[in-house]
Amino acid sequence: MRIAAIGSGIIGGGWIARFILSGHDVTVHDPHPEAARILGEVIANATRAWERLFQAPLPTPGRVIWATSVAEAVADADYVQESVPERLDLKHRIIAEIEATAPATAIISSSTSCFKPSELRQGACHPARILVAHPFDPVYLLPAVEIIGGGATAERACALLTSVGMQPVQSNTDIGDRLLEAVWREALWLIKDGIATTQEIDDLIRFGFGLRWAQMGLFETCRIAGGEAGMHRFLGQIVAAQREPRTKLTDAPDLDNALIDRIAAQSDAQSGAHSSRELERIRDDNLVGILQALKATDWGAGQTVREMENAFYAREGVAATGYPLRIYDVTVPGGWVDYNGHMTEFRYLQVCGDATDAFLIHIGLDAGYRAKGCSAYTVETHIRHIAEVKAGERLSVETRLLGHDAKRFRLHHAILREDGSIAATGEHMLLHVDTAASRATPMGEALIAALDAVAAQESEAHPPHAGAGIRSVGKTPLAI
Amino acid sequence: MRIAAIGSGIIGGGWIARFILSGHDVTVHDPHPEAARILGEVIANATRAWERLFQAPLPTPGRVIWATSVAEAVADADYVQESVPERLDLKHRIIAEIEATAPATAIISSSTSCFKPSELRQGACHPARILVAHPFDPVYLLPAVEIIGGGATAERACALLTSVGMQPVQSNTDIGDRLLEAVWREALWLIKDGIATTQEIDDLIRFGFGLRWAQMGLFETCRIAGGEAGMHRFLGQIVAAQREPRTKLTDAPDLDNALIDRIAAQSDAQSGAHSSRELERIRDDNLVGILQALKATDWGAGQTVREMENAFYAREGVAATGYPLRIYDVTVPGGWVDYNGHMTEFRYLQVCGDATDAFLIHIGLDAGYRAKGCSAYTVETHIRHIAEVKAGERLSVETRLLGHDAKRFRLHHAILREDGSIAATGEHMLLHVDTAASRATPMGEALIAALDAVAAQESEAHPPHAGAGIRSVGKTPLAI
Repeated sequence: MRIAAIGSGIIGGGWIARFILSGHDVTVHDPHPEAARILGEVIANATRAWERLFQAPLPTPGRVIWATSVAEAVADADYVQESVPERLDLKHRIIAEIEATAPATAIISSSTSCFKPSELRQGACHPARILVAHPFDPVYLLPAVEIIGGGATAERACALLTSVGMQPVQSNTDIGDRLLEAVWREALWLIKDGIATTQEIDDLIRFGFGLRWAQMGLFETCRIAGGEAGMHRFLGQIVAAQREPRTKLTDAPDLDNALIDRIAAQSDAQSGAHSSRELERIRDDNLVGILQALKATDWGAGQTVREMENAFYAREGVAATGYPLRIYDVTVPGGWVDYNGHMTEFRYLQVCGDATDAFLIHIGLDAGYRAKGCSAYTVETHIRHIAEVKAGERLSVETRLLGHDAKRFRLHHAILREDGSIAATGEHMLLHVDTAASRATPMGEALIAALDAVAAQESEAHPPHAGAGIRSVGKTPLAI
Repeated sequence: MRIAAIGSGIIGGGWIARFILSGHDVTVHDPHPEAARILGEVIANATRAWERLFQAPLPTPGRVIWATSVAEAVADADYVQESVPERLDLKHRIIAEIEATAPATAIISSSTSCFKPSELRQGACHPARILVAHPFDPVYLLPAVEIIGGGATAERACALLTSVGMQPVQSNTDIGDRLLEAVWREALWLIKDGIATTQEIDDLIRFGFGLRWAQMGLFETCRIAGGEAGMHRFLGQIVAAQREPRTKLTDAPDLDNALIDRIAAQSDAQSGAHSSRELERIRDDNLVGILQALKATDWGAGQTVREMENAFYAREGVAATGYPLRIYDVTVPGGWVDYNGHMTEFRYLQVCGDATDAFLIHIGLDAGYRAKGCSAYTVETHIRHIAEVKAGERLSVETRLLGHDAKRFRLHHAILREDGSIAATGEHMLLHVDTAASRATPMGEALIAALDAVAAQESEAHPPHAGAGIRSVGKTPLAI
């Protein structure tokens, strides 16, 4: 597929980035004097995002080939993406220029969120090949694209867009923007009437329904709220609300039995393969994953989770009972399971690392200690993966201190399953470091005293595998 | 705080679950004959979700104490959460019963999404202590809660709800439900008019703007779309759309300069600490994290990412160039960095594990091979964490095969930074298993031949640390 792009701003540039990162060359025309700089910045951001997103070998990126005119850009094109400003006269002029030189079979897709294909097609030579392909910003990360226009051309466009990682939704009109426009209008009223600020509106979305919409959208999440009775029951609950609007946008359809039945039937077709209880668990596993992802980027609802974890540690402390210390428990989330159906290997080290963090809090090497400029870094790890672990299993960790000196300490974790059997062991050497200098430095008296107190309880023989390496296999190792 | 709950369905039960999981006892009254079963199911789901969400010591759960009447439930309460059906006469009766026996200082919060505090307060003895505290389903996972009512009582309620992990937004009226109702009405029109199905609407949300709303909401994401000129420019773009509605909900406020200025000023206060470029990167890091989380649960937009990765592998193959094999590259996402400011220890094993996966594809042990019932499991791992790695660094892996026999093979990965220096090494023993029997089994001829071909290139001495264990430190290990 030879691809051309007319217009390379935020939306046009997002399209171009998605195409070239998928390995396609794109010929680009944009008369804006700073077009090259702006597109370069969009592509840089998109490349940064794709490299971080995909754990797979990315294609060699395609090239951006600048054209000095629309005619030059589209001369050989199989697919043209038009993303010029939202003025119908301008769109008509550009489409006429495209049609003048592009091959007769070329697909012409407009990014417009304002005009219908019927409007764009006015005066066109080959109107059936003109479509709307309306994406969402950032185009290089959000898969959704609305394909409006239908027919064989739309099928060809969908095939191309699917191959670059998009999720086309075909329809006869703009659906997404109608939903967005409804929210925008209500939000504008809320601000105009002095009821809410942009911050309050955003907070209600990103700490509230935005989280559930990211994974199921509107209807599937509400189906769950209907419980076992599903969509019929939920819709029954909102009939009254539809009659007595709180919104400023009062033009409501009559939610009569025919409409309720239609929605319930569509919802059954969409979600009926899962029971309400299953949907709940799927939703919760997705929400746990999203919240943990936002915790890792320290943003929005993820910050709330981190603050709760800090509060739990502050309130509960680290209950280091017995010896070996019973110091850390965790339940395996659904997202920790790999294609073999059990906990991915790196999650074993995550459990060990979190148990090490709990041990560090136990000896006083906590956030307050780190704020003074020192921390503990793991320098060596030896894991024995012994048993398969499934999602939902509760794991607990038993921790021993195998030794320590002025700058180092050596931990041994046994990850136990609920029946007491060992799922894995981890042996770890940690180094006490000056974080600014990135250099080992002796621990102070308090830490040494805390380690001495733990070490005093370590009286049994070390585990037989402690200090052992991985044995050779097959060919005798060459002499070293 | 002594907490009481009147009503224990999906919303009331979600509240109760959040309170007891935070360590509070809750006295509950609900006359529904199956109340105990339903609440038990909600608490089971909430417990499952909290254990998977928090990597910290959870409090000992509080107890559910059933009361046979409203009076008994609230007799000692400091805080009462009312979640009975949405009928004003019923709410008035319940509030009267609460006021008859609850302490005069008790806060009475209603979960209502239909009535205002002024309506609930009609006829109350102590009207100022009656609030709306309106959450979003699932209450035990979504932090947002709207506190409507104001005053000192609202401050006390916010303090309690923040302590159980919620994010209160105080206002004078229901904001979230006005936004939701606007979307609902537009969605109902789309379905009534036969334009879209529930599936299509949900897909546009969960593959589109729902993903960006989960982390920034409406205004902050649109501020980014305005580029360097920010909110003013974006709003200028939508002025025309507001005048020419595509929605069925036509009551639009005049987006005049005064309203544009107000929104822009609020947006500056909300997001002005970050440049447009910074917000873009924050947004993209959050989206990458959310998409990877959904990939791990194999749902929605995460499935799209996984399909793209499979397509990349199918198209690009594993480019195993040179020896040691250059087999896997990855860029460190923002969410992989820990409190020390560099890549968390378990992500080193993730990189090694993904390089192992690439090696498995290289020798033919791919998804098609696994579908026949055999796979390779890592049974032992030895990592040397050598250098600190920051977010955004490009890492590449050099892989050697240190040995193999009929059932096992031993890999060595060197994780290289862009300057060629070693960030870490990983040594791994893998076992070829019959996955159904969960037992080691010999590899077939094709795999052995592929391993032989790699082994033929392994001619240098093994790395000196290969086969080595973690050395002892401090106290001499006890005899074993």
